[in-house]
Amino acid sequence: MRISLKVAYEGTNYHGWQVQPNGITIESVLNQTLSDLLGEKIEVIGASRTDAGVHSMGNVAVFDTDTRIPAEKISYALNQRLPDDIVVQESREAAADFHPRHCESRKTYEYRILNRRFRDPLRRRDTYFYYYDLNVDKMQEAAQYLVGEHDFKSFCSIHACVETTVRTVHELNVEKKGDIISIRICGNGFLYHMVRIVAGTLVQVGSGVIVPEQMKEILERKDRSAAGPTAPACGLTMLGIVY
Amino acid sequence: MRISLKVAYEGTNYHGWQVQPNGITIESVLNQTLSDLLGEKIEVIGASRTDAGVHSMGNVAVFDTDTRIPAEKISYALNQRLPDDIVVQESREAAADFHPRHCESRKTYEYRILNRRFRDPLRRRDTYFYYYDLNVDKMQEAAQYLVGEHDFKSFCSIHACVETTVRTVHELNVEKKGDIISIRICGNGFLYHMVRIVAGTLVQVGSGVIVPEQMKEILERKDRSAAGPTAPACGLTMLGIVY
Repeated sequence: MRISLKVAYEGTNYHGWQVQPNGITIESVLNQTLSDLLGEKIEVIGASRTDAGVHSMGNVAVFDTDTRIPAEKISYALNQRLPDDIVVQESREAAADFHPRHCESRKTYEYRILNRRFRDPLRRRDTYFYYYDLNVDKMQEAAQYLVGEHDFKSFCSIHACVETTVRTVHELNVEKKGDIISIRICGNGFLYHMVRIVAGTLVQVGSGVIVPEQMKEILERKDRSAAGPTAPACGLTMLGIVY
Repeated sequence: MRISLKVAYEGTNYHGWQVQPNGITIESVLNQTLSDLLGEKIEVIGASRTDAGVHSMGNVAVFDTDTRIPAEKISYALNQRLPDDIVVQESREAAADFHPRHCESRKTYEYRILNRRFRDPLRRRDTYFYYYDLNVDKMQEAAQYLVGEHDFKSFCSIHACVETTVRTVHELNVEKKGDIISIRICGNGFLYHMVRIVAGTLVQVGSGVIVPEQMKEILERKDRSAAGPTAPACGLTMLGIVY
């Protein structure tokens, strides 16, 4: 039976999703906890291999098992054994050939900026603190240049190796609620560091370093150095995936 | 010169506000950090002596100093030395006779309940997780019985020793935003554990254990055992004080 999990986590204390030789990761904790619970060797396949410090409300992990525990009950049994900072939100049976990275999907990420004079100790782990005022209207205007199918090479870490840097952004919206600016981006997939580079570039727009119209030129340059800096990991949360 | 600080903190890792023989407290960290910064022995007076695990966005602390650092700059200098979970939001000169507990004030607290099926790892420190559905309309209806001047003896920990248990609640509102139910209470002062007992009792109303009209009777009983349980500290945040 193939099981699909919706996994929420605070990434602060993890070296990202993917199993690594050194350092604890979300994937390694899930593998270990599932193997202990089910009495079989389990290796999950994750949809988004989030970076160190990045959070999630709905990453997807899939694995095969011979267990007789009903699929929907696995989440409860698993949460009793998982650490506080990883909480499975749902478990259910998936099609035997379902692969979370090879199926078409819409992924949504949120990048949160805490834009106020002083840090908020209660939001220090899941927001990026930015002291200077940001112009949210300009950020929203700039964001619209990225919507659609584009070559996002300028917004891809130079350390990435991918076949194509063309991706489709379905929606990209910048909103302010209270003192939190949220950048929500939905697309068919994102390049390495892409959401954080988009966020870092939009912060430059919001602070007046670049004007919204320059986004077009940044895309056309197809050069990482044309875009802004990579915003810190702690501001980023993977919200969910729809297949 | 008397200085007043507005202090935000995440209470998770502290034994509350007040200096204790064992265990680190917000007050002891402020005293130590201010003494180091200013080169004098500083002892702050706090407005709200919050319990272990309770958070704040605007507790007030006052102290006297001979420093020549301008009052408004002290916050910045202090924040560079304070741990991440304590952030001073403002520093300013206060009247020489200003005492944060002996002056009339309006204090506002918020108790947050995360009401959903699964825990949210990003909100585990500043909300109380409650699995079963809560009826927010009933909670709001019940809350209104507590507005005004009443003897809140039923809502006071039996471990408290106070001259009078009469207090005035100016406002008490229960609202749901997303999956967070916020209970906001504003009053001229609160008894020991009062806000948490109010929250625990409103949760019983929301889950149908007691009906809103019973709040009147609970007040009249003047007996701690008439009210609901003390809700966990982690859900409580002192929002601010107006003098």
